[in-house]
Amino acid sequence: MKNNVGSGWVEARNSRGNVGLVPEDYIEEWDDDSDDGKSTVGYGGSQMEEGGTMQRGGAHSTMKISLNKFPGFSKTPNPEVYLLTKSVAKGNDKLPIYAGEVGPVWLYPQIQLDCVVADPKKGSKMYGLKSYIEYQITPNTTNRPVNHRYKHFDWLYERLVEKFACALPIPCLPDKQVTGRFEEEFIKMRMERLQGWMSRMCRHPVISNSEVLQLFLNYRDEKEWKLGKRKAEKDEFVGVKIFSTIDPELPELDPGQVEQKYEMYSQFTRSMDNSVKELLAVGHLHWKRCTGPLQKEYRQIGKAFQNLSSVFNTSAYPSRKLDATGKTYEEIAELVAGQPKKDLHFLMETNNEYKGLLGCFPDTIAVHKAAIDKVKEADHLVTMNKISQQDKHIMEKNLSTMSYALQAEMNHFHSNRIYDYNRLMQFYLEEQVKFYETIAEKLKKALGQYTTM
Amino acid sequence: MKNNVGSGWVEARNSRGNVGLVPEDYIEEWDDDSDDGKSTVGYGGSQMEEGGTMQRGGAHSTMKISLNKFPGFSKTPNPEVYLLTKSVAKGNDKLPIYAGEVGPVWLYPQIQLDCVVADPKKGSKMYGLKSYIEYQITPNTTNRPVNHRYKHFDWLYERLVEKFACALPIPCLPDKQVTGRFEEEFIKMRMERLQGWMSRMCRHPVISNSEVLQLFLNYRDEKEWKLGKRKAEKDEFVGVKIFSTIDPELPELDPGQVEQKYEMYSQFTRSMDNSVKELLAVGHLHWKRCTGPLQKEYRQIGKAFQNLSSVFNTSAYPSRKLDATGKTYEEIAELVAGQPKKDLHFLMETNNEYKGLLGCFPDTIAVHKAAIDKVKEADHLVTMNKISQQDKHIMEKNLSTMSYALQAEMNHFHSNRIYDYNRLMQFYLEEQVKFYETIAEKLKKALGQYTTM
Repeated sequence: MKNNVGSGWVEARNSRGNVGLVPEDYIEEWDDDSDDGKSTVGYGGSQMEEGGTMQRGGAHSTMKISLNKFPGFSKTPNPEVYLLTKSVAKGNDKLPIYAGEVGPVWLYPQIQLDCVVADPKKGSKMYGLKSYIEYQITPNTTNRPVNHRYKHFDWLYERLVEKFACALPIPCLPDKQVTGRFEEEFIKMRMERLQGWMSRMCRHPVISNSEVLQLFLNYRDEKEWKLGKRKAEKDEFVGVKIFSTIDPELPELDPGQVEQKYEMYSQFTRSMDNSVKELLAVGHLHWKRCTGPLQKEYRQIGKAFQNLSSVFNTSAYPSRKLDATGKTYEEIAELVAGQPKKDLHFLMETNNEYKGLLGCFPDTIAVHKAAIDKVKEADHLVTMNKISQQDKHIMEKNLSTMSYALQAEMNHFHSNRIYDYNRLMQFYLEEQVKFYETIAEKLKKALGQYTTM
Repeated sequence: MKNNVGSGWVEARNSRGNVGLVPEDYIEEWDDDSDDGKSTVGYGGSQMEEGGTMQRGGAHSTMKISLNKFPGFSKTPNPEVYLLTKSVAKGNDKLPIYAGEVGPVWLYPQIQLDCVVADPKKGSKMYGLKSYIEYQITPNTTNRPVNHRYKHFDWLYERLVEKFACALPIPCLPDKQVTGRFEEEFIKMRMERLQGWMSRMCRHPVISNSEVLQLFLNYRDEKEWKLGKRKAEKDEFVGVKIFSTIDPELPELDPGQVEQKYEMYSQFTRSMDNSVKELLAVGHLHWKRCTGPLQKEYRQIGKAFQNLSSVFNTSAYPSRKLDATGKTYEEIAELVAGQPKKDLHFLMETNNEYKGLLGCFPDTIAVHKAAIDKVKEADHLVTMNKISQQDKHIMEKNLSTMSYALQAEMNHFHSNRIYDYNRLMQFYLEEQVKFYETIAEKLKKALGQYTTM
């Protein structure tokens, strides 16, 4: 219950029944991003189990828990359903893999899809009692903006996990946050992160081509959106079944080669995950040092010089230069404290994104491990007459297909990783150079006030 | 007892009677700087009391305690002895004060005295059982080096305090340190500080001209030195009597003017003392931060980049540039940790010297305060027939002389202070500019390895 009393104040009743005045903005913060989730079609439980769909933990797993229908959500989906599948999807549903310069690669579109997430607007419903932020997303293909709330992104994320997560790491969305959601700083940060997430999805040759992403970016009206949602939620090629749509135009790999590749990627993603976390940890420390004790210390140095200058100026020999030096160190204090936002921020954001991405690999890779183990059992199963020799060949062929999918994905990962870290380090070092040069310049100016004696 | 057993080891007996092997160098560290102090002529107790000689506390007071014969050593010398003195020293003993551009000034010599303290050498006596460090001091006047041990400096300091401390702040010598006296770092540091102390004494127009400093710098042989020492120790113009040698060729000041000057200098020296201590405190903090957590953090950043680079290099796409960036941050870590020695060291040393100097002012200034109070009593004493009207005039004239001495000394202090802090800040800022420029340069080089994509 609320009753607007004017001047931005509202009479409201809290959960204990007390009535009092609260700021209007405050009330609005009690909205839930997923408020109207119940009115749409629910998650198709049975089909997900059948297809071995995976719900993700990853870096921001806490966010998903409330939505998760499957308590044992990090249990590895069973690849058996797929391993014994003979038929392969045809036509548009086919996901080809080619031999690229660096090894097996996905088919990349001629024009890379991308989009701009911008213009966050406050919307409201239920006569203003519930409010939310709506973002404008403009794809480079149509150049026509569509609007989406956070919960729509979340819906898209759920669909992508269901459909692709056995083969592709689908990074989590930026954390959902309930309090302070309408603070400008937070909205800006979330938009930046949603932009990063959307760009990563758009840049992916398989995801960019998916019906669900196309729907998200291109729907023309509410009707098309609702119908598209319903269709996507009924998609049967989800979970491990995604592998049956993959068509590598490459010679079959034997299980030994598959296992070797698996080991390599497993090792790499684990090591990179550790290194990224190490960098994030020291980055966090450094951020706190710059905005905390270092800023304080440079301010103190500045103050000490200025105080000494004040004392000198009580004598018959006043001088402004020591005071100017003190002010320079106070300026340096602010430069030091402001620098992390200028360079470390992007380094942290990118590495946080990679932490999220790398957090998905253990689950994706576990599906491959389970498939390798199944194929290892095949000989025994043939002897026991549980499967035929032909079944065994199908299993090995399908395992080879899975491996090509992993290889194509890893090559995609590396190409992004090389691009991202190159851009990141370049940007970081450029800003660091500017930072140190600015300080040197300021000190030179302060030095210029002293005359050689 | 010691017994050299070879290879740098010595058999020694400690104070509890235990016998064992100790390094030869270690044994030598048990020498005492003042070991042969007792064999020279003792301090003239009676004449010092009579003259109101002052023993100093100051910054390094702990050093003096064992030598101090007067428990109440910070008790202000009584200026009464001087205030009623009619005669003034004649000829060479006269210390004139002139009207300079900035006010009353001491008579400065045409060529400024200075000396170089260098070439510390280990000497020994008592068949090598006791050893010491001997420094070579070369004055710019004779260019002929003389040798002195720390205890000789200490003797000089004692004489200067006795003779001048009521009128001039005589800064303490660098701390005497018993353990580790022969470590190279320590010897270098003490030499640097003895140099600073000697230069300050040489630069002083009154001290530089004193017989005792001339003896210290110019003695030709052991005999001349011993005779000179004996003479200096018998000097009668010590304590407040020094004022009777001062001859201001300036109009007499009335007690009101004297008090005003006194208040101003008292205020200034106290404020500067506080500011210098504040600067030392933050300098100390900053030093610890640079050589401690900051170095560690830049190393960690460097390591994190290098580790990430190692992981990247296990992929099919190796690259050296991120490793180079990591190495750059490790280099920056060492630059950061090494910088305080390059710039903050001189800032700290100079301010430490000033802290010592400023620590002498309260005692010097207290003599003036006591004199002002005595003169304030004069009217009453005349009424009581304790002193004559003429005595009162003499007291006022002598108080004026004391004030001129203080003014000349403060003007000398300011001229040194302006020179020292100008030089100090210039040097500090130059080194700081170099530091930040070097880092920027290194980062630019690291940046150069990345290609724009």
